[in-house]
Amino acid sequence: MALTTSAVKERSLLGLKNLSASEISSILDRAAYWDDKEDKVIPILKNHFVANMFFENSTRTRFSFEMAEKRLGAEVLNFTAAASSVEKGESIYDTVRTLESMGIDAGVIRLKPIGMLEGLAEKISVPLVNAGDGNNEHPTQALLDLYTMKRHFGELKGLKVSIIGDIKHSRVARSNLWALQKFGAEVKLCAPENMQAPELAAYAPYVSMDEALCVDVVMMLRVQLERHEGSIFKSPEEYRLHYGLTEERAAKLAPHAIIMHPAPVNRNVEIDDALVEHPQSRIFKQMENGVPIRMAVMERALL
Amino acid sequence: MALTTSAVKERSLLGLKNLSASEISSILDRAAYWDDKEDKVIPILKNHFVANMFFENSTRTRFSFEMAEKRLGAEVLNFTAAASSVEKGESIYDTVRTLESMGIDAGVIRLKPIGMLEGLAEKISVPLVNAGDGNNEHPTQALLDLYTMKRHFGELKGLKVSIIGDIKHSRVARSNLWALQKFGAEVKLCAPENMQAPELAAYAPYVSMDEALCVDVVMMLRVQLERHEGSIFKSPEEYRLHYGLTEERAAKLAPHAIIMHPAPVNRNVEIDDALVEHPQSRIFKQMENGVPIRMAVMERALL
Amino acid sequence: MALTTSAVKERSLLGLKNLSASEISSILDRAAYWDDKEDKVIPILKNHFVANMFFENSTRTRFSFEMAEKRLGAEVLNFTAAASSVEKGESIYDTVRTLESMGIDAGVIRLKPIGMLEGLAEKISVPLVNAGDGNNEHPTQALLDLYTMKRHFGELKGLKVSIIGDIKHSRVARSNLWALQKFGAEVKLCAPENMQAPELAAYAPYVSMDEALCVDVVMMLRVQLERHEGSIFKSPEEYRLHYGLTEERAAKLAPHAIIMHPAPVNRNVEIDDALVEHPQSRIFKQMENGVPIRMAVMERALL
Repeated sequence: MALTTSAVKERSLLGLKNLSASEISSILDRAAYWDDKEDKVIPILKNHFVANMFFENSTRTRFSFEMAEKRLGAEVLNFTAAASSVEKGESIYDTVRTLESMGIDAGVIRLKPIGMLEGLAEKISVPLVNAGDGNNEHPTQALLDLYTMKRHFGELKGLKVSIIGDIKHSRVARSNLWALQKFGAEVKLCAPENMQAPELAAYAPYVSMDEALCVDVVMMLRVQLERHEGSIFKSPEEYRLHYGLTEERAAKLAPHAIIMHPAPVNRNVEIDDALVEHPQSRIFKQMENGVPIRMAVMERALL
Repeated sequence: MALTTSAVKERSLLGLKNLSASEISSILDRAAYWDDKEDKVIPILKNHFVANMFFENSTRTRFSFEMAEKRLGAEVLNFTAAASSVEKGESIYDTVRTLESMGIDAGVIRLKPIGMLEGLAEKISVPLVNAGDGNNEHPTQALLDLYTMKRHFGELKGLKVSIIGDIKHSRVARSNLWALQKFGAEVKLCAPENMQAPELAAYAPYVSMDEALCVDVVMMLRVQLERHEGSIFKSPEEYRLHYGLTEERAAKLAPHAIIMHPAPVNRNVEIDDALVEHPQSRIFKQMENGVPIRMAVMERALL
Repeated sequence: MALTTSAVKERSLLGLKNLSASEISSILDRAAYWDDKEDKVIPILKNHFVANMFFENSTRTRFSFEMAEKRLGAEVLNFTAAASSVEKGESIYDTVRTLESMGIDAGVIRLKPIGMLEGLAEKISVPLVNAGDGNNEHPTQALLDLYTMKRHFGELKGLKVSIIGDIKHSRVARSNLWALQKFGAEVKLCAPENMQAPELAAYAPYVSMDEALCVDVVMMLRVQLERHEGSIFKSPEEYRLHYGLTEERAAKLAPHAIIMHPAPVNRNVEIDDALVEHPQSRIFKQMENGVPIRMAVMERALL
């Protein structure tokens, strides 16, 4: 029952950039279907083997995929690139081909190296689902973000969304940008100069923090100051002062606006402690929504 | 089907100190029920999702919970706090809330930081089971200890039990002390001065090693000499000489007395090699009993 | 339903040296049976608990066993010796006894220390399957190698096989040598002097690289140059020059000859990059074959 190359490609989810709005919509609709189910387990993926292959650690994202896979009755095998096999100099390609040889039906994959996923997917004959790809895309995160906005606002068209923080290194920002624009949402970017990705300016304007607050959705990004040598910020406190969503700034948001964050949050750096579970925050709702989104994505990969 | 706060609290197992003797008895009785079952799997927890959240490593305790959960047919997801997420500065609260958001029905949790569990449980809306909480309590360990004593002696009332070793850092000692006293057992403590917990002297006397041997149950604790700077013992050998259960000391035990240890043992430090599988030892029996105890505890948490 | 000691022994798979050709044949035949099955899951091991106990890391081998176990419907629990429990000084014996006490029905075990497995198996009352034992044996790897050769050539008798590389440290070489000779295959060894195991010369001759290529099967071994202090090779390039299967050398192989490697490969050290997926290579086929072999082995251990 080997799939043809194009069938594998259609079932894979490498990014949202090359997906049509209608393809994205059908995933969101199917997620809503799973979200509304009362039953915890609906074993449509019974006897299907899924490998969660995490070459970059993320217990949270792995857990979310595993919940989704198990709610659909799949057999789940977790693979985390241990120090040892990296020491052994084993290549990512060899590992993925190995797990494929062992008979998995689909792979969820998270990678640190930039620009490797697409070539990898070309050579593998089972569907691959991107669970984080360098600084390129993180499609299931953006899908759950879209789903969260759509459930809240009814539709995405015309929605004003600011993405604030370390745009440069953010695959979450990129996946959201590509997808939101397909639905006619208006995206603004906001970042200190050393965290901007200049190539994205052609798609969305960089605005000031003040302007970034005049939107329907404020999407804060996790900041990793240690990545930024020669940063203009001497401390997390200083970053917060200029680009954090402080309680003071949150007070200026429109009452209908919502606060989002892909998590894990740096409390009191990019977002104030008191805002994480603020009535306008959807942060834990996002995590909740990740499960039906990933159910829809895994179903699409396998059935 | 969200539970009320008080229902969640009743299903959680944070410690034995605040549990009544009859509540403890009903767990022990139910463990006996599971222990006597011939069937390996009785899937009463089918379609229930349990997260084993280990913020402090213990493959042994995690394994025992996983056996129990799977024997009851639960879906099990393991979460171990990886170096990476600690590096990311993610808080334990945020992690537990995240896993809760993803739809787990109960969580088993093991923590190093002292005094965090109770506050955490207040904010989480699914039952939590304590699998080791700082130096506070380790209720399932004490339950399996009680179960082991009860199966052996028929009843706990009047039983004389010595707990010997690093009382100060021992959550096992505390949970056993609280529980044994509820059943009218007589507990003695024995420890070098720097390993004593003075606040427990109000509940049980500290006695000499010789006196500690005149009991029905000798419960040895794991000693971690590296924790004790300025220790009065210069070496494991010296600790053994003063507080170890040596073959010589074991020969003085009453013939009906049993030897217990929560494991893993330091052979030839707190207990002599030859005693670990001695006819009077119940050490591996304790581990065996851990599974039905945890089945009873997980059933109580979820049904 | 405790098994007798001899029944446990017969179900265990510690090595191939003491297995008869007919016992090996029956495992290979049963693997062929599983290999030809269309169904992904055939739950003959339902309600059986298997522990994969890896005291030496190998996500690849663990994954292969886990696939096999789950395809047979077993309950699988993974145990990896974490730094922490080693720090705690916990012995391997105590750990295995502990997991046995908790009710596993069989254990798959991978060990680094040499010469420990046999003694361990004597003391454990459930079947143990060797997933890599020091530099002694790695029976399931050799079984999948034999299976791969047999599927390709029809029979093993008279087959000429060269094993090339770090013979000294290779449990794969040893298991293959013992097994191949039982079936009347002719084995040659080829290794630089510091990687030879002199005691094996009584069973198979050490030959030159040129001679080693005149065979039906070239089995390359993974080389770990860092293990060889005072190595005669100053670099991986130099090793490749003398003992690597280069494209140039591969061109001298008989057209019907096949290339094998237990993986993971060091590309361009012991084998050239272009040869890994060469038409004559069976490397990924070997990995594929590992699953039905391990299904046969686990079935034999448990039923």
